[in-house]
Amino acid sequence: MTKPTFIFLDMEMDGLYQCEANYVPLTPISFLKRASFVYRKSPSVIYGDTVYTWNETCDRCVKLASALTLLGVNRGEVVAALAPNIPALYELQFGAPMAGAVLSALNTRLDPPTLAIKLHQLEPKIIFVDHQFIQIVLEAFKQQSPGKPAPPRLVLMGGKNCTGVPSSAMNYDDLLSLGKPDFKIIHPNDECDPISISFTSGSTGKPKGVVYSHRAAYLNSLAVIFRYDMRKMPVFLWTVDMFRCNGWCFPWVVAALGGTNVFLREEANAEAIFHSIVIHKVTHLCGAPIILDKIANLKSTEQQVIPTRVDVIVAGPLPSSEIISKVESFGFEIHHGYGMTEALGPMTDRCLRTSGDDERLRIRCREGTHNILMEDVDVKNSDTMISVPSDGKTIGEVVFRGNVVMLGYFNDIEGTNKAFKDGWYKTGDLGIRNPNGGIVMKDRVLDSIITKGEIVSTMDIEHVIKSHPFVMEVAVVGKPDKIVGEIPSAFITLKDECFLSSNDVIKFCEEKLLPRSMVPINVSFGNLPMNSTGKILKYVLRETVKATESIPCTNGEKGVSSISL
Amino acid sequence: MTKPTFIFLDMEMDGLYQCEANYVPLTPISFLKRASFVYRKSPSVIYGDTVYTWNETCDRCVKLASALTLLGVNRGEVVAALAPNIPALYELQFGAPMAGAVLSALNTRLDPPTLAIKLHQLEPKIIFVDHQFIQIVLEAFKQQSPGKPAPPRLVLMGGKNCTGVPSSAMNYDDLLSLGKPDFKIIHPNDECDPISISFTSGSTGKPKGVVYSHRAAYLNSLAVIFRYDMRKMPVFLWTVDMFRCNGWCFPWVVAALGGTNVFLREEANAEAIFHSIVIHKVTHLCGAPIILDKIANLKSTEQQVIPTRVDVIVAGPLPSSEIISKVESFGFEIHHGYGMTEALGPMTDRCLRTSGDDERLRIRCREGTHNILMEDVDVKNSDTMISVPSDGKTIGEVVFRGNVVMLGYFNDIEGTNKAFKDGWYKTGDLGIRNPNGGIVMKDRVLDSIITKGEIVSTMDIEHVIKSHPFVMEVAVVGKPDKIVGEIPSAFITLKDECFLSSNDVIKFCEEKLLPRSMVPINVSFGNLPMNSTGKILKYVLRETVKATESIPCTNGEKGVSSISL
Repeated sequence: MTKPTFIFLDMEMDGLYQCEANYVPLTPISFLKRASFVYRKSPSVIYGDTVYTWNETCDRCVKLASALTLLGVNRGEVVAALAPNIPALYELQFGAPMAGAVLSALNTRLDPPTLAIKLHQLEPKIIFVDHQFIQIVLEAFKQQSPGKPAPPRLVLMGGKNCTGVPSSAMNYDDLLSLGKPDFKIIHPNDECDPISISFTSGSTGKPKGVVYSHRAAYLNSLAVIFRYDMRKMPVFLWTVDMFRCNGWCFPWVVAALGGTNVFLREEANAEAIFHSIVIHKVTHLCGAPIILDKIANLKSTEQQVIPTRVDVIVAGPLPSSEIISKVESFGFEIHHGYGMTEALGPMTDRCLRTSGDDERLRIRCREGTHNILMEDVDVKNSDTMISVPSDGKTIGEVVFRGNVVMLGYFNDIEGTNKAFKDGWYKTGDLGIRNPNGGIVMKDRVLDSIITKGEIVSTMDIEHVIKSHPFVMEVAVVGKPDKIVGEIPSAFITLKDECFLSSNDVIKFCEEKLLPRSMVPINVSFGNLPMNSTGKILKYVLRETVKATESIPCTNGEKGVSSISL
Repeated sequence: MTKPTFIFLDMEMDGLYQCEANYVPLTPISFLKRASFVYRKSPSVIYGDTVYTWNETCDRCVKLASALTLLGVNRGEVVAALAPNIPALYELQFGAPMAGAVLSALNTRLDPPTLAIKLHQLEPKIIFVDHQFIQIVLEAFKQQSPGKPAPPRLVLMGGKNCTGVPSSAMNYDDLLSLGKPDFKIIHPNDECDPISISFTSGSTGKPKGVVYSHRAAYLNSLAVIFRYDMRKMPVFLWTVDMFRCNGWCFPWVVAALGGTNVFLREEANAEAIFHSIVIHKVTHLCGAPIILDKIANLKSTEQQVIPTRVDVIVAGPLPSSEIISKVESFGFEIHHGYGMTEALGPMTDRCLRTSGDDERLRIRCREGTHNILMEDVDVKNSDTMISVPSDGKTIGEVVFRGNVVMLGYFNDIEGTNKAFKDGWYKTGDLGIRNPNGGIVMKDRVLDSIITKGEIVSTMDIEHVIKSHPFVMEVAVVGKPDKIVGEIPSAFITLKDECFLSSNDVIKFCEEKLLPRSMVPINVSFGNLPMNSTGKILKYVLRETVKATESIPCTNGEKGVSSISL
């Protein structure tokens, strides 16, 4: 497109060059154009009574891009959005890049002050806001410093009659009708140009704006297809938020395969999931493991066995065997991934298949290998960057390199420099490498405990405790101790109508043959502190244990009673 | 790797850059490295009693690359090979690029003078030769002009005791043992650097050296996987020559998926195919449609129904319904593709499924859509480069653009310039575009007939004639005619023990409701002239009809008797 024509003179080969015929910058925009060409009248979007075809979705995105250009959005400028998973947000995933813009879909659970900070950082020219969040945005506008640039222009998605909206605000449909259907799509000058900014969940501190390139977005979409052995024309139920790693790149994946996007305005509950599967023949859905809990906890009167195979892809903490077995019994196929915003979502994958109560198998499920489009994965000493031995026990930091890694943190060169070391992306997560090459994830570097000079994985402890049928959620942190360094302290949220004492938990850990050094000394009960994306805030718990006097529990003794977190 | 670190200052976004952590030049070398990491002890190669694992294949390729470097092969230099499909030729597909070299696997059916010309063009530093072809190579060396550079160094694959071999020649195994196992793989400086040179079959004239880039090879390998919905760890039976479009990129595809390559030294016959399927659980094989004929014509006493699904991918002329039905009845799934060396092999695909004698369906099978990694396909007026209407009848030239198109013709800038026009690769093939977007291939531009001012597709005529149960092969060309322009002339090879008259064929065409203008006037019988890759040489037939006096056949009249071609 815009790549200069050049001859490989240095290769001493004549007759060769790059031109538009043999070099096209990689971009997910190509997926949409091809879907419109190949899949035409097949359904692209289903949202209640609204159904679009690929021809229509492509036309709408072209008009959206045209309208953005008419509103003065220039190449490389940021367009923000605050909306649930609705078709308009899907259209922005293509329409914004097709105007040359960089899309930042923001977390819909942000409060006005945090949103104001994000808007200050991003300086978007336009913000698309679902009517449900308009008051939060208007509140955030008020909190912006007066000396700062004018707030972005508002485009309202749905719900025309919102109060307090500035007169410059436009309605999404009106904006679209401004756009020209023959608008010439703006392609990236270079495939490494930015396409989007996704914020990290901030479980370890301040959320960072992670920038993806067109190239990474394109290649990772292909990687997703490989990872889950996806075929043409899947039916994808949107249960993962589109503001998270660009919906794990699924907006682009579904277009690449000419599939159908099924949207639910509200957060998906089990009934809605089963309903969509039956009505729309859903083949794939994904999200945090909570989705499995929802499915598993569906009341038995409502339980349905699904008619066809549905792949459920979860990433984050490993769900309990009990949950997995139950969800599998309905006919779902479960994949568990490990990844992060910086690697465009899940990066390793393992298909879970339960086999009774085989705990060893369960632990082995945490092992994954890197996907076909990720160049390299390794486990290294964080300081020396020397690889740990593949002995299945030496803990090091998991590092990646490849084309499906972020361009860096938005306006944060220090953060980017810290993340990229010696040609590797440092995940901040601990892992070991098995003799077979598989990598087993341990904790975040920050979350591990050092007791008697040994690195202990809090994840392994949590995993055992979570297998207790009464435990809903658990987090283990280290409590500083003058003698051993740190001692494991467990914080537990119990299921409704379930009761446990600290000693019950300790006994359970011992019965499960957890090594002595890993059995928690303190066990507390309460509601775990979580961030807006449902991740447990361990740093809050660490502050809590520091402030609490240590009351070790031993057999026969009563543990620390429930504390409110 | 070697990409310079740079900041996107023009995007007014700080904190972003390319480095080894997030940018790796795309190259199929990555597939081998990952296969060695992920698939380790799984079989990579099966060849008689020889079995290698992915660890072993990777180690062997690293040593091969190291040895090539020790022999003085530099980045960008050509390494040639003349061998059947054997593991050593497979290793060269990775080993040569890993030394920075460009591999040219040559057609094993070349005669010494043609081989001499190719060697003169390529100036390879080294040529790898299977013992079966050593005398042809030595003969070609003799035919090289004395003033030219010294002939390439010989590396002998198998068969140590060949006569007349220069003393500088090495044995492949000895070469490998020279290589260092810890050799640092040479990656491309730029992903658009050349990786290989494949010669066109030359059905329309002089064979051209088509150069692929690392990027195109990588992306087309992914395209192949999508095209045939391939899963992890396929078992691929080598029935397509590796010198043809780099074995349709399958050396790299199989590595990408951690599959198994099953090699047969001799050209595959039906017995060997069935045997391999039963013994090795083959899942995929491909080649020219002749492979289907072979399978279909297996004697009934030897016929076996295959135990599992096997995908057979053919490209070239569409096989007859009879053949397809028969092969399908054994349990094979047949895909038919359209492509060319310049597009790295088959580019469109359609899975064939017979449904009785529905000729309309059969014709529709020729329709294909472009693969996920090809950017655009169009049908244009060759001169104006304006798209033809999608009316299912206007004939134009099929054109492509995308990342899976060659870099150009080796040392032939004129040829390259002619192939690339206005940002499109001109295929030289005719097609129409259906209202649904599908492209239906017609003839090569050169092979079409213009009769009474109308373009007639010789392929459509051939298709009808080939459906006659006695016809083995048919080619139709235009015979110049003062009145109507050109008249269709058919050349037919009959099956053994089958007899037909010219009139029989004409009657058959009429019965099949071929339009009057398309019914051949001359019908001749004989053996069709073919090139070394099995393509019919229509230009020879055109010369033949020009030299023959026209003897039109009408009903009741005797046609031209069989002529020897």
